[in-house]
Amino acid sequence: MTVVRSLFWEDSALVVLDQTRLPHRVEWLRLRRWPEVVEAIRGLRVRGAPALGAAGAYAVALAARELVDDPQHFWQRLEEAARAIRSARPTAVNLSRGADRALRAAQSAAEVEQAARRALEEAHRIVEEDERACRALAQAGARELAHGERVLTLCNTGALATLGIGTALGILRAAWEAGKRVHVYACETRPLLQGARLTAWELRELGIPFHLVVDGAAGWLMAQGRVDRVLVGADRVAANGDVANKIGTYTLAVLCRHHRIPFWVAAPISTVDLGTPSGKSIQVEERDPEEVTRFGGQPVAPRGTPALNYAFDVTPAELVDALVTEAGVLRPPFGPALRAAVEGVRV
Amino acid sequence: MTVVRSLFWEDSALVVLDQTRLPHRVEWLRLRRWPEVVEAIRGLRVRGAPALGAAGAYAVALAARELVDDPQHFWQRLEEAARAIRSARPTAVNLSRGADRALRAAQSAAEVEQAARRALEEAHRIVEEDERACRALAQAGARELAHGERVLTLCNTGALATLGIGTALGILRAAWEAGKRVHVYACETRPLLQGARLTAWELRELGIPFHLVVDGAAGWLMAQGRVDRVLVGADRVAANGDVANKIGTYTLAVLCRHHRIPFWVAAPISTVDLGTPSGKSIQVEERDPEEVTRFGGQPVAPRGTPALNYAFDVTPAELVDALVTEAGVLRPPFGPALRAAVEGVRV
Repeated sequence: MTVVRSLFWEDSALVVLDQTRLPHRVEWLRLRRWPEVVEAIRGLRVRGAPALGAAGAYAVALAARELVDDPQHFWQRLEEAARAIRSARPTAVNLSRGADRALRAAQSAAEVEQAARRALEEAHRIVEEDERACRALAQAGARELAHGERVLTLCNTGALATLGIGTALGILRAAWEAGKRVHVYACETRPLLQGARLTAWELRELGIPFHLVVDGAAGWLMAQGRVDRVLVGADRVAANGDVANKIGTYTLAVLCRHHRIPFWVAAPISTVDLGTPSGKSIQVEERDPEEVTRFGGQPVAPRGTPALNYAFDVTPAELVDALVTEAGVLRPPFGPALRAAVEGVRV
Repeated sequence: MTVVRSLFWEDSALVVLDQTRLPHRVEWLRLRRWPEVVEAIRGLRVRGAPALGAAGAYAVALAARELVDDPQHFWQRLEEAARAIRSARPTAVNLSRGADRALRAAQSAAEVEQAARRALEEAHRIVEEDERACRALAQAGARELAHGERVLTLCNTGALATLGIGTALGILRAAWEAGKRVHVYACETRPLLQGARLTAWELRELGIPFHLVVDGAAGWLMAQGRVDRVLVGADRVAANGDVANKIGTYTLAVLCRHHRIPFWVAAPISTVDLGTPSGKSIQVEERDPEEVTRFGGQPVAPRGTPALNYAFDVTPAELVDALVTEAGVLRPPFGPALRAAVEGVRV
């Protein structure tokens, strides 16, 4: 089995698996300057909330390394770089949080060389933490899955989206490796087809049985009694349990409620943002309409077709039956449970 | 404005607009033999329940014309051809109904030349009836639309799907032409993108303002209060009002119920099948998984990815708020209303 890694640090560079080339080509990008990381993030070459956390921190570390030659403006320009990195994508909280952690680590140093080292160490720490969080989260979720369960998922929440074995997909993997015969329905996840390109690829590598389906088929599968649970990831979990995640998630949550199917969200604590009181204050990224009107570089709609391209949606906590974190499976009401989980991780 | 026609009869041939080439190329296919029509139907070069009704009848007419040279086996071979034509696609009732009507018209003749003429006349009659039905249906529906209404739709239900101005899209066109400023959200409709390729094309030709969206965005648009009504077509309406239509329709109906948004289905009486008591007895066509694993001819998923490709789903009558027919806007309970409407058309 191929060892799938979204990114790693090597020879003073951030090495990123270019996810826009998958599943047809496995290409690694060697990013040596922080603006290259910002471009890779904007272009979704690296993606997934937890992976973005590390990418943001490494980008700050690269900026710090670059700026040590200019000690006079080091602190000011490092802050500017961190600001630009944070704003590369607005919805996933991990990106700005990762960048902030690396920046604060740098700022704790007395001089610039030490600052650059500390930023890099903090980025490494984020990778290690996420690897551990994924494993714990996956174990906690996998315990709850029944033998033979048929789970529908959206987007990609596996190793490619994280620094470990993944979140929602990590749970499925842990269940599978524990001998539970799960079956996955992977929604293709338009417009960028992370389900078809990335989740199908990971599931094949892992040998977990699955079917790829178009996003519009989820309701019909449920109506036929073919779905036992929906399990998705998150780009940001608000303090009240509202969940921002890939566009289409909210539709799945409504379908689950209608069919009385459990709707579960898997998210490491690093994706929980107590500073966001509810989904109402989450900025939902709108991306280039051409992601909808074109495909693989080819236009699919008539020239000049206007399109709306929300990359995410927000699912209210009342439609979420459980939040799976490395601190265990949280149940409603999520507010107190999330606060306790975040405090527990901080300790 | 281009006059959009899905098909017409000319010089002893069925001329079909090849919808697999749209929106990039406008190519007409001249079909002179009935197996070519079957191939065009299977390959979705001609599609849409009402258009399939005429295509089926013309295919029988072509078969009859071909078979007049073999009077001895005429009747038997015409029945065999009709059977093959009927089964080209299983879900839309219009196809088998159109083929049956042309066959019965032929069978009412005393000899084969007359039979071939009658089959062709019956096909022409289906075209005329559908043209009238679309117009009446569109007017009936358009009266109910409010000024400024924002309507979400799926697949293509316009001139391309019918022999007239369309069903759901016909209503939007009639409302627009009556001066009502509607706005359309067109779901792209994976896997074959009839929304992006065909509906976007028709809406642009008509000058009706719209946005193209991915299918997964429907729920989020509703959550934001941007959708006043969902209006879709139908491939078969059962006697109790259950509706078979493009995959994704059922999901929209569930979303509408959750958001208390009216879910309306537009269907000419020719799509109502009193012989199908409920959706349970409707055969839902499963098509080639490659329609899902490929996009615009290009593979998007890893080689060998297993996919499920239901072309349709069935929405139970209890989720349908209104059925718009040429006999007017029917309300629940649909059973008696549908029986009365079918009787009315027969008279």
